[in-house]
Amino acid sequence: MAPVGAKRNILERLDAGEVVIGDGGYVFALEKRGYVKAGPWTPEAAAEYPEAVRQLHREYLRAGANVMQTFTFYASDDKLENRGNNQRFSGRQINEAACDLAREVANEGDAMVAGGVSQTPAYLSCKSENEVKAIFKKQLDVFAQKNVDFLIAEYFEHVEEAEWAVQVLTAAKKPVAATLCIGPEGDLHGVSPGECAARLVRAGAQIVGVNCHFDPMTCVKTVKMMKEGVQKAGLKAHYMIQPLAYHTPDCNCQGFIDLPEFPFSLEPRILTRWDMQKYAREAYDAGIRYIGGCCGFEPYHIRALAEELAHERGFLPPASEKHGIWGASLDMHTKPWVRARARRDYWEKLKPASGRPYCPSMSNPDGWGVTKGHADLMQQKESTSQEQQRALFAKLMLKC
Amino acid sequence: MAPVGAKRNILERLDAGEVVIGDGGYVFALEKRGYVKAGPWTPEAAAEYPEAVRQLHREYLRAGANVMQTFTFYASDDKLENRGNNQRFSGRQINEAACDLAREVANEGDAMVAGGVSQTPAYLSCKSENEVKAIFKKQLDVFAQKNVDFLIAEYFEHVEEAEWAVQVLTAAKKPVAATLCIGPEGDLHGVSPGECAARLVRAGAQIVGVNCHFDPMTCVKTVKMMKEGVQKAGLKAHYMIQPLAYHTPDCNCQGFIDLPEFPFSLEPRILTRWDMQKYAREAYDAGIRYIGGCCGFEPYHIRALAEELAHERGFLPPASEKHGIWGASLDMHTKPWVRARARRDYWEKLKPASGRPYCPSMSNPDGWGVTKGHADLMQQKESTSQEQQRALFAKLMLKC
Amino acid sequence: MAPVGAKRNILERLDAGEVVIGDGGYVFALEKRGYVKAGPWTPEAAAEYPEAVRQLHREYLRAGANVMQTFTFYASDDKLENRGNNQRFSGRQINEAACDLAREVANEGDAMVAGGVSQTPAYLSCKSENEVKAIFKKQLDVFAQKNVDFLIAEYFEHVEEAEWAVQVLTAAKKPVAATLCIGPEGDLHGVSPGECAARLVRAGAQIVGVNCHFDPMTCVKTVKMMKEGVQKAGLKAHYMIQPLAYHTPDCNCQGFIDLPEFPFSLEPRILTRWDMQKYAREAYDAGIRYIGGCCGFEPYHIRALAEELAHERGFLPPASEKHGIWGASLDMHTKPWVRARARRDYWEKLKPASGRPYCPSMSNPDGWGVTKGHADLMQQKESTSQEQQRALFAKLMLKC
Amino acid sequence: MAPVGAKRNILERLDAGEVVIGDGGYVFALEKRGYVKAGPWTPEAAAEYPEAVRQLHREYLRAGANVMQTFTFYASDDKLENRGNNQRFSGRQINEAACDLAREVANEGDAMVAGGVSQTPAYLSCKSENEVKAIFKKQLDVFAQKNVDFLIAEYFEHVEEAEWAVQVLTAAKKPVAATLCIGPEGDLHGVSPGECAARLVRAGAQIVGVNCHFDPMTCVKTVKMMKEGVQKAGLKAHYMIQPLAYHTPDCNCQGFIDLPEFPFSLEPRILTRWDMQKYAREAYDAGIRYIGGCCGFEPYHIRALAEELAHERGFLPPASEKHGIWGASLDMHTKPWVRARARRDYWEKLKPASGRPYCPSMSNPDGWGVTKGHADLMQQKESTSQEQQRALFAKLMLKC
Repeated sequence: MAPVGAKRNILERLDAGEVVIGDGGYVFALEKRGYVKAGPWTPEAAAEYPEAVRQLHREYLRAGANVMQTFTFYASDDKLENRGNNQRFSGRQINEAACDLAREVANEGDAMVAGGVSQTPAYLSCKSENEVKAIFKKQLDVFAQKNVDFLIAEYFEHVEEAEWAVQVLTAAKKPVAATLCIGPEGDLHGVSPGECAARLVRAGAQIVGVNCHFDPMTCVKTVKMMKEGVQKAGLKAHYMIQPLAYHTPDCNCQGFIDLPEFPFSLEPRILTRWDMQKYAREAYDAGIRYIGGCCGFEPYHIRALAEELAHERGFLPPASEKHGIWGASLDMHTKPWVRARARRDYWEKLKPASGRPYCPSMSNPDGWGVTKGHADLMQQKESTSQEQQRALFAKLMLKC
Repeated sequence: MAPVGAKRNILERLDAGEVVIGDGGYVFALEKRGYVKAGPWTPEAAAEYPEAVRQLHREYLRAGANVMQTFTFYASDDKLENRGNNQRFSGRQINEAACDLAREVANEGDAMVAGGVSQTPAYLSCKSENEVKAIFKKQLDVFAQKNVDFLIAEYFEHVEEAEWAVQVLTAAKKPVAATLCIGPEGDLHGVSPGECAARLVRAGAQIVGVNCHFDPMTCVKTVKMMKEGVQKAGLKAHYMIQPLAYHTPDCNCQGFIDLPEFPFSLEPRILTRWDMQKYAREAYDAGIRYIGGCCGFEPYHIRALAEELAHERGFLPPASEKHGIWGASLDMHTKPWVRARARRDYWEKLKPASGRPYCPSMSNPDGWGVTKGHADLMQQKESTSQEQQRALFAKLMLKC
Repeated sequence: MAPVGAKRNILERLDAGEVVIGDGGYVFALEKRGYVKAGPWTPEAAAEYPEAVRQLHREYLRAGANVMQTFTFYASDDKLENRGNNQRFSGRQINEAACDLAREVANEGDAMVAGGVSQTPAYLSCKSENEVKAIFKKQLDVFAQKNVDFLIAEYFEHVEEAEWAVQVLTAAKKPVAATLCIGPEGDLHGVSPGECAARLVRAGAQIVGVNCHFDPMTCVKTVKMMKEGVQKAGLKAHYMIQPLAYHTPDCNCQGFIDLPEFPFSLEPRILTRWDMQKYAREAYDAGIRYIGGCCGFEPYHIRALAEELAHERGFLPPASEKHGIWGASLDMHTKPWVRARARRDYWEKLKPASGRPYCPSMSNPDGWGVTKGHADLMQQKESTSQEQQRALFAKLMLKC
Repeated sequence: MAPVGAKRNILERLDAGEVVIGDGGYVFALEKRGYVKAGPWTPEAAAEYPEAVRQLHREYLRAGANVMQTFTFYASDDKLENRGNNQRFSGRQINEAACDLAREVANEGDAMVAGGVSQTPAYLSCKSENEVKAIFKKQLDVFAQKNVDFLIAEYFEHVEEAEWAVQVLTAAKKPVAATLCIGPEGDLHGVSPGECAARLVRAGAQIVGVNCHFDPMTCVKTVKMMKEGVQKAGLKAHYMIQPLAYHTPDCNCQGFIDLPEFPFSLEPRILTRWDMQKYAREAYDAGIRYIGGCCGFEPYHIRALAEELAHERGFLPPASEKHGIWGASLDMHTKPWVRARARRDYWEKLKPASGRPYCPSMSNPDGWGVTKGHADLMQQKESTSQEQQRALFAKLMLKC
């Protein structure tokens, strides 16, 4: 176990051309394990059930992750207050506990700790830039005190709020990454992925990309658009991707939230490990070097990324001790037709059945009202100011 | 936390008409977490990574399980020797470690410990009854020494081997349950579910049923056939069910092993929590009172069983603190169309899409060769002895 | 063109081991062409639009059919009176026109004319045996006068009514065939296929089988059960099959009527020509020698039957002049990947996509109420007389 | 029946804002009836089997079509010579017979006769503009002699060849329509729909649009793009659409030809009558006033268009005498759950099942090689002349 000081930081690794494997999502995985409540999606468990969070961190580490993100999603004070639970722990306690857990496990291997902030209710309810920034600042204070290795502003639907977050985070003099939960159609104000990315770089982010809301292939496409936008603007950045582990070809611009299956019937959409290997390759080929996951990811999904890129990274993750590459561990099965599945070609070509003949393969997203509103906004874009747009969108959200 | 001695045993509970919630599967869940190798499916992790196994036990307990099964699936010495790994731990060490973990967590709540044995390579390679029984005896010695609360003979494809196991286990003077991994077509020698169940009861099992290999609805159907067989034979028993968490309407008589998706592309078949509630109700209505799960189950699936039967049991499981009944936790969502999903009717009616338009909804099982062989065997049943049949089947298995 | 007298009759052909290809359905095909009204499904077009009916006859003849069935489905007087249309033509005129058209076209090739009767409203409304028989007698009078080659009693849901029809038809001293629209579960009084078939043979039918309501594979299965029943009863018969051209794996015992798609959204279920070749082979292998089609069939479906059995019959049908066997006519296509489709293996293996990702692959039949009633009836079978059962069923039908 | 002279011509009708219902496709419908060979798809049947072609014309007329297109698809001399059949009839005879049939039936109702030409092998094999035009001229001579009411240049994959056709046809001093078989990606040289349409208008077409190759919704989208292109160019035109009757969401730029199901397993994709009504409404709302169909259309599909637009047109088609609007004819059904289907809401909401659980809902088109080539061509577009591009494409076609 290397001392913290000896670890190269995220930018040194990316500058050297290394692949950085991210961890998977925490809120969905812990919801299935019984420690997070769907709906609020807040991370009190960091303080309440540290052994459960620690174990998940450890599984991601074992699967090959180079980053342990603090389990601080939605852990801003304004969000935690809204969550409708009895609050045994303060926001500060939760953020601190999350940092300690991430550091403890990171030190068991070659991983960095990333402190994360995400979008706030304050922004959506039209609080001022100063008020919103003050909220991020409170989380940053904990991250600075706990000396995380770098910072991530993630899961922002509006680039404007992400810029504010980045501006706050850069004060800590640590590397800053920023990912939006947007697709190819851009953010919810209609700003294109390319423009979003350029704005995030200008705000101070060294790594930009997307996380959550869309499936891996859609996310790769969006990051490609970001890359083009950054290059066109004459800027430079590293690229990062942490998509869903769900197939979502039928999403609208707001992603999987609007699918009728969200969040309790997404099972048939879960990616296989082979889907994950395909995603890892596509992301790598697109020049993305920080490759992880978000909602729906389980440890074996992260291991699949690490296995696909084992050649590029030069090693297999620890958890591969319990996994045969491309199904190789089936080669001793007593049934010959199961043994015949111990090969790459078999799993790559297989079109897995759902076992659900009464179900369709795609569904219609809910919430067209807002999408319609979104379209109206798009048309007004040139004639209204940012503030006007934001107010209008908030109004639409309330009206729906 | 009640002292062990104060706990009523499994038969007292079932005799009193209580619902006993089983735990979910360990091998598939731990495979996804990186601690079990698909193919061998052996439980060395009990000794190697106790914290991972303990955590999963704890999650099932928290989800409402009344039973902690020792993580001793395929932990017979003959199976462990075959597994092709470097063996850091002896069979005895693995079985002991598994007992200790199950007991430790069971004592954190109101749960019993069940020691489990499963089918052996020895039987399939036509070892004698004495040889096979000696193998079960070695595991039983550990269970007796560790003082488990009751015993389960599970995952047997041939009722004959299960009878042998039950005969060994009854020596310990503890309650014995026995479950076969068969469907409505019966065991692999063509013995019907009803006859299988009667034979298991006669061999000494107080609880009989099925586990693994088929989806919940198929398993409920099979246990119903078992119940009819037991009653027709003038016998009495309690009934138990621990099915897959995968939809398998397209299985042949050998269950999900023969599906082309086994074991690495089963994701689209995973049951939702709502499917689980339906299963719990069906099982309960069929008179089954020991209701749990097997491969594919995650803690939230067990919680769903406990929530569906909360009225009958009189309480909700601890993990329901992090779950709104029938989606109730969505009722504060900012998007009105997501809020509209906070009701039972919505989730019960939803037909979840797979997000995979290029995939079918059912697939053709592999391995028709053996099924054909099976049919041949069926026709010879009347004219051949059990021994002859077993030899013939073994030959078919080798030939395939 | 051979004179009518020279043609061997249907029994001579079947006795000689020949394959007799039936024609396809008329009501569905003419509904799509604009000449039959879905709902009433009555054949006034025989008198109103003779050129349209003649053309469809001609296409079936050209496709290889050896039989021209008179377009007299539902042409009993009691049905025609109910149909709610202005009646420009009497029942007698319609039946006569249908005979003339069938004869005209049959004489253009090597085809026989079969006069057909089908189930009556009189039976369902509990009219007496004499009243029901009088209705069949009126149609038979026309068939006798027009000198059809043989007679078919088809589309009966109750074997009892079919027996009555057969008893009437035998008076004409022509060969009589009888087909029920039932599946493996038997007729709507719960009489098994085997028993139905034996009763029809005893009533005087020389050819028995099924038509309509179920897909080809289900129909082959049902006719096999009929054959077993006839043989078990020590009787002899020829076998006949005229199934739907729709895939209906999701039917209940009342067939496609209860599928939610009936009758206006069945398109995605239509069999391909390759499905038809598979059906022809299965039917032939089951010993069925009169092989045709019913609702959903188009002329190219009949051609596919004739092409599959060309070797057995010794010739191809006229319409094969415009068809390459197994896609051979694609071998000159300008695109090489389309040329690659000019082979049997390609079409046999292809799993055709629906182009409908928002639709399921199976649906739940409506009408469980009656099915429930049917089950009740089944249980009372032993204690109630035929008359009582029939009255009970009629009551259920009215009540629903 | 109005005398021919009294009929207003197509432009007078469209100028007056009337809806013109086109007929459906002939080659696919007659293939199913046994008169056209898939692969060559040539229309010899006009001369060989006039009664079959006449009957189909009549059914389209009865379904509400205002136009009888001569059955002259692929009836250019160079195509007919290639078809590999014994040629009992000359190209001139076939074209003449087709004109006579269309006129005969048109005069039975209020329909116009349209003489049609389509793309030629001559163009694809790089014959000169003069040679290609000479081929069109031969067909035009027949149309002029037979005094058709207007002319259609249809089914062109390259706008250039369509321009040549239009230039030839305008010589006849009759209205000229031109439709390409392209989708939103434009023609096979990469010319956008908008540019294609503007070029066709400049070449002399008064009506422009698309036919064949794509499903109705894709075609509506493409015609909208054409309309924008024409308006942007400061030009004026009427718009026309004759799409497939197959759902093709999974097409590439070359349409249904490249789908693996083409042409013998397209059945699961066939549109229902309700899909057709939706299409008619969408097309109408997009400002398209000449609305018909192409491959896959049957007479009832055309009737559905006429019924959807009955209010706009002021009358129902003759064939509606045999059709209840929105399923109304089911309202007398003996089964109450079938009666319950006699309403618009039921059929509009129904998601029809395929009955094929082993089949996917979408498939991957073949022929990516050419698509790749197409992409290469697109990139070279600016630097190569039209001639060079055409030669390059031809080379690719040969090479594949």
